[in-house]
Amino acid sequence: MPEVRTETAPHHVMLETDRCSDWLGVEVLLAEPGHAKLRMTVRPEMTNGFEILHGGMMFALADTCFAMACNDPAGDEQTITVASGADINFIKPARIGDVLVAEALPVASAGRSGVYDVVVTRDEELLAVFRGRSRTIPKP
Amino acid sequence: MPEVRTETAPHHVMLETDRCSDWLGVEVLLAEPGHAKLRMTVRPEMTNGFEILHGGMMFALADTCFAMACNDPAGDEQTITVASGADINFIKPARIGDVLVAEALPVASAGRSGVYDVVVTRDEELLAVFRGRSRTIPKP
Amino acid sequence: MPEVRTETAPHHVMLETDRCSDWLGVEVLLAEPGHAKLRMTVRPEMTNGFEILHGGMMFALADTCFAMACNDPAGDEQTITVASGADINFIKPARIGDVLVAEALPVASAGRSGVYDVVVTRDEELLAVFRGRSRTIPKP
Amino acid sequence: MPEVRTETAPHHVMLETDRCSDWLGVEVLLAEPGHAKLRMTVRPEMTNGFEILHGGMMFALADTCFAMACNDPAGDEQTITVASGADINFIKPARIGDVLVAEALPVASAGRSGVYDVVVTRDEELLAVFRGRSRTIPKP
Repeated sequence: MPEVRTETAPHHVMLETDRCSDWLGVEVLLAEPGHAKLRMTVRPEMTNGFEILHGGMMFALADTCFAMACNDPAGDEQTITVASGADINFIKPARIGDVLVAEALPVASAGRSGVYDVVVTRDEELLAVFRGRSRTIPKP
Repeated sequence: MPEVRTETAPHHVMLETDRCSDWLGVEVLLAEPGHAKLRMTVRPEMTNGFEILHGGMMFALADTCFAMACNDPAGDEQTITVASGADINFIKPARIGDVLVAEALPVASAGRSGVYDVVVTRDEELLAVFRGRSRTIPKP
Repeated sequence: MPEVRTETAPHHVMLETDRCSDWLGVEVLLAEPGHAKLRMTVRPEMTNGFEILHGGMMFALADTCFAMACNDPAGDEQTITVASGADINFIKPARIGDVLVAEALPVASAGRSGVYDVVVTRDEELLAVFRGRSRTIPKP
Repeated sequence: MPEVRTETAPHHVMLETDRCSDWLGVEVLLAEPGHAKLRMTVRPEMTNGFEILHGGMMFALADTCFAMACNDPAGDEQTITVASGADINFIKPARIGDVLVAEALPVASAGRSGVYDVVVTRDEELLAVFRGRSRTIPKP
């Protein structure tokens, strides 16, 4: 039943208004507090001059996943958690048509700061590792 | 004279085939070996759920500038230089309509590895600092 | 039997000549290819002006563990693996007398480059996370 | 006149109680708010199993310089600024007897967070680049 499927499909409040993730075509596979999993297919307009996925788009996928793990899927009335920075290592390139999966999990937290790891894979093969630094601030 | 202007306008061979940078709308302000400067205007489809420029798009602008500084504007027959990784610190958010400028300069090199710094500004105000790690490899 | 215990105690060839690790007082808990575990007790001369473990000493413990995981415990005739860089996040401070444990594991590899994660804990409490970038080169 | 020299020699309040920097033998060349310069000579007990300066000691020198630039040389009654993390790239190795100079300067600040760059040189040759992330907190 499609209605039931829609109601139980993973959903994250951030994506309702995130136009960039919409453009990226990210699909939510899992959205729990502190844990997120996304899928994205590499399109031609995401590639760079070497005909591989632009590093910025690899980063954008990981960063979106990081943001979804940092922020409650149902939203929070008081605070938002934003990225203060991140480090990424590119392991292998991705090409047009590749289906990428990003998964984010928390590593550590101290006060309102946190560290999250995101791995980006293609058929379980590791393409990039991302370590994000988060900061929780009052809702603007 | 438009012809003269076209001939002397900064140009980088990488951008001829970089479809992602085309989508980002980056404009080359300067392209010399080891030094690049780009301009990009924030569009609605680049923003995230907090209505600010998606971190991945900020990274993509910096990463494109980094790639242009790493690779000769006229191209190289033997090698290409790719990003092995990067670290970014987000200082201030950017919003729709903001005109961003990224500038990349080399910091250090050791053999075929290099380190480049990119700063992203809006009216000389610092928005992000990016430190990229490059690796020069034989042309595929 | 002490003789037997000595023969089976974890050992790493790097530590035979590593005078800095000797000064740090690191004790090998585990040394396998790609996996190392070390123990170190915080001494007064390792603390900074805030009476907590100096960040450089926290880094040094993690970096030593990283180097032991990168290099075969029995040594290698052809190559050595060195750190090209690392990123560390300090989560909680350590104080004089604290017994710290560092554990290093591989995250990814691409050609002669690798990424390793090291976690530093005190009684299973996370104090620092370190992500090292390695490069394998011919033995000098 | 030694008295005059003592009064005008650069001094930083943090080093009065920093036992680790004392062990490292760091000498203050410059200490101003937001700007510090240190000198350190590589000793045998600072080297690793490859007979080069241990990465942790290179980091410790840079980290000490970073801490001195972050904190006012005369001290502050209300706050201290600590490192939340750092990224380092090792460019060239240092050997026993080498005289290293570290210099730290601010890159960016946002609220109570800051980013500082430290370069470590030997006779103006670049050995390492360090980018530190700071956080200002109430004095414990």
